[in-house]
Amino acid sequence: MSATLDELASRFDCRVQGDGSISVSRVATLAAATPDAISFLANPLYHDQLATTRAGAVILGAEASELCATPCLVSRNPYAVYARVAALLQPPPAPSAGIHPDASVDPSAKVAASAEIGARAVIGPGASIGDGAVIGAGTVIGSGTVVGAGSRIAPLVSLLDKVRIGLRCIVHSGAVIGADGFGFAEDDGRWIKVPQIGGVIIGDDVEIGANTTIDRGSIEDTVLEDGVKLDNLVQIAHNARVGAHTAMAAMSGVAGSTKIGKRCKVAGGVVIVGHISICDDVMFTFRSVVTKSVTEPGIYGGSLQAMEASKWRRSAARFKQLDAMHERLKRLERK
Amino acid sequence: MSATLDELASRFDCRVQGDGSISVSRVATLAAATPDAISFLANPLYHDQLATTRAGAVILGAEASELCATPCLVSRNPYAVYARVAALLQPPPAPSAGIHPDASVDPSAKVAASAEIGARAVIGPGASIGDGAVIGAGTVIGSGTVVGAGSRIAPLVSLLDKVRIGLRCIVHSGAVIGADGFGFAEDDGRWIKVPQIGGVIIGDDVEIGANTTIDRGSIEDTVLEDGVKLDNLVQIAHNARVGAHTAMAAMSGVAGSTKIGKRCKVAGGVVIVGHISICDDVMFTFRSVVTKSVTEPGIYGGSLQAMEASKWRRSAARFKQLDAMHERLKRLERK
Amino acid sequence: MSATLDELASRFDCRVQGDGSISVSRVATLAAATPDAISFLANPLYHDQLATTRAGAVILGAEASELCATPCLVSRNPYAVYARVAALLQPPPAPSAGIHPDASVDPSAKVAASAEIGARAVIGPGASIGDGAVIGAGTVIGSGTVVGAGSRIAPLVSLLDKVRIGLRCIVHSGAVIGADGFGFAEDDGRWIKVPQIGGVIIGDDVEIGANTTIDRGSIEDTVLEDGVKLDNLVQIAHNARVGAHTAMAAMSGVAGSTKIGKRCKVAGGVVIVGHISICDDVMFTFRSVVTKSVTEPGIYGGSLQAMEASKWRRSAARFKQLDAMHERLKRLERK
Repeated sequence: MSATLDELASRFDCRVQGDGSISVSRVATLAAATPDAISFLANPLYHDQLATTRAGAVILGAEASELCATPCLVSRNPYAVYARVAALLQPPPAPSAGIHPDASVDPSAKVAASAEIGARAVIGPGASIGDGAVIGAGTVIGSGTVVGAGSRIAPLVSLLDKVRIGLRCIVHSGAVIGADGFGFAEDDGRWIKVPQIGGVIIGDDVEIGANTTIDRGSIEDTVLEDGVKLDNLVQIAHNARVGAHTAMAAMSGVAGSTKIGKRCKVAGGVVIVGHISICDDVMFTFRSVVTKSVTEPGIYGGSLQAMEASKWRRSAARFKQLDAMHERLKRLERK
Repeated sequence: MSATLDELASRFDCRVQGDGSISVSRVATLAAATPDAISFLANPLYHDQLATTRAGAVILGAEASELCATPCLVSRNPYAVYARVAALLQPPPAPSAGIHPDASVDPSAKVAASAEIGARAVIGPGASIGDGAVIGAGTVIGSGTVVGAGSRIAPLVSLLDKVRIGLRCIVHSGAVIGADGFGFAEDDGRWIKVPQIGGVIIGDDVEIGANTTIDRGSIEDTVLEDGVKLDNLVQIAHNARVGAHTAMAAMSGVAGSTKIGKRCKVAGGVVIVGHISICDDVMFTFRSVVTKSVTEPGIYGGSLQAMEASKWRRSAARFKQLDAMHERLKRLERK
Repeated sequence: MSATLDELASRFDCRVQGDGSISVSRVATLAAATPDAISFLANPLYHDQLATTRAGAVILGAEASELCATPCLVSRNPYAVYARVAALLQPPPAPSAGIHPDASVDPSAKVAASAEIGARAVIGPGASIGDGAVIGAGTVIGSGTVVGAGSRIAPLVSLLDKVRIGLRCIVHSGAVIGADGFGFAEDDGRWIKVPQIGGVIIGDDVEIGANTTIDRGSIEDTVLEDGVKLDNLVQIAHNARVGAHTAMAAMSGVAGSTKIGKRCKVAGGVVIVGHISICDDVMFTFRSVVTKSVTEPGIYGGSLQAMEASKWRRSAARFKQLDAMHERLKRLERK
């Protein structure tokens, strides 16, 4: 579809600068845009490209707009406006209602007439697929599992038994939701499996990345609240709870029974031990290791950065001697 | 099913305290239990809940039992007893023998009459599926691969060619067993693929987590001995060997040709380099990096914990100067 | 198949030492070889096994050949010769041309007559599968996706919409190529999804490991150049570019928009932040954390190694005091 700048401005609450009758039909980067495209400037790094872009229009902030000769949408939050404009101009394909003849749907499952069930998908006994939901090719929906209206489950996802997915969620390929948690009792050097009989509850508007794993609870449920966003290869262990609107980047993980607050931002590769509590509005920096509860909002973290290898070796060798260095320092101070 | 305390005590070698004729039919947490449920106390953190639980019975240790007014099973290892009671009262669904009409079974594969083959599963040429084994929906079993009796392979697992799975194993969704190891020979800045022609041998009573990867050996086999337990997103590289009853938590990994002993405990996020040897009974702590062989049982590890970010930056800056600090310390001592 | 040493030497440009008429039909380790097998010595660790091997022949370097009584192929690069010999003697099964009757192929897809499409595979609308390509059982090929001639896609891979795979690539099971990148705009404590409308371009001769994830670009494409090799559980975020012949070991990851040069070697567990640039010919050591651009070829990295746990605790405690220690050192120096 296409829209004029005036239409976009009124829909997304922006100010138009320049010719509002210009029509755009797709989004593009400043560097690659052509006159049919609308671009955006959210990162000052790309400011110089404003002068040379061939975009029909640009979305940007008030400050940047002062020097912009291209027609533009001016907003307090240009990146959010861009996201909404892109979704309007280039939406994902609408569900094509119906069950593919090669799908395998248990007679006791309930599939909404407006839902799309892909080729080779398997819908288990008693499962329920809501209005306008999409189940990708080859995806397996377990027994008694519920997929809420408007949710999109990509190909080759495993939603195992008794999982609940809320409204308008997106689950990417390879994600596994509802596998057994890692629970074993030690007995004379052997491991006795602890049955994992809890469920998984996923709120509304949650997005779950490719090959991410969310285990079922051991007795009670593992929970992702509304608006949680998980990237790829994330691990959520049994009984964990992730608060509303918290985002976790790729390769991060939460161990068992840990509770994470609302609106937290967890960078890539961060791991959080089990049985602790993180309050709301905490940010963890790239690749940090969280071993204690956090009770105050703020930024926490720490990982040592790569250095030229020979320099690293010297620092690492001294790290092992740190306590001895401290003793020597104390002795000197006493003199 | 349900059982009386007396029946459970005799079956699992516990002492009954209180009314042994009480019958329970499910397990629950102390906080959520109702009178039809049996609960357990294994973590002293939850001791206070003993006074208020509505559970019909509780499994606990001798010390905790002194103050327990609820009927209880007293054991030296209450968590192991809980695991066994839960498995008795709430067992996984029994295999429903037979091949789903939507499965694809090669005519040369041998499938035991008591095995269950799920919808859209693919069983390759010459594969063999043992008595009472379960192959989940959409799972692919490669050519010549053997799944032992009583093993449960979840939906969407890849067991590639010539993999051997022992008796009573559990393999969770998305696991890939038998992909090529990462072997390349460098030749003038290019990589020549080294054919990976070994197999994968998995012992009895092994559990393998969701989206975990276990590569086939380059020439000989990659081996997991009996009773090994791997969590989700674990990587086992080609030619590695993991000793009996060793457990590895989520996001841990073992590089090529490394041998790990028996009864080791590898915490989450631990990575172990290739071509080393870890003796029996070693524990590695959360997110540690193992780069040398370990020859003595014990606890090893280390990862720096997240701090308030501004504090971290100061320590990290000094870390880079550690060798210089050491030199300055030495100069002072000489004076 | 089998070949004589003379034939192998002429094909792979080696010198024969000893009886060149000896015929071998498989590869094996020095320790396990029998007279029908050819073995190799590339790692000096195994030098002693030369004296006792029962191999019919051995591939090795000039120096080691001086003491070798077994007939041998002498090469400057014995491991690369081994790789080529193994591929000749024990090639993967040739594609068995045709579409399995249980596959689901959209009528608008183009499948070369010489391609093999496995059981339960799903080929989407407008997809194109090249000459001699193999699509594994249960694999899903998205709409408009192209798989180049000679590429082998293992079972249960997700190649989502509009992905391009070059010639002679190998993609292992569970890999997900073309899922949405992790892009959200923050708006009043909520996340607005940024549509991910770019593609993924994979060059020729690329190998991608099991359960590895490569996201589609947000506007433009995510790119892997020719000859890239990725191990298992690797994450490549949206808009990243990995240069030709770069290899990344298991559990490594690249965040969004980062560019990695050619011929880089990234060890296991290395993570690289977003929006940086790594020049050609850089090596990162095991489990390092890369947070800055690298402009000079060389070896970089750093991760602190596991120690005996009580020693670690002492060093880690002092790490937190490092800045204070530095201040104390400065005070002493001033005196």
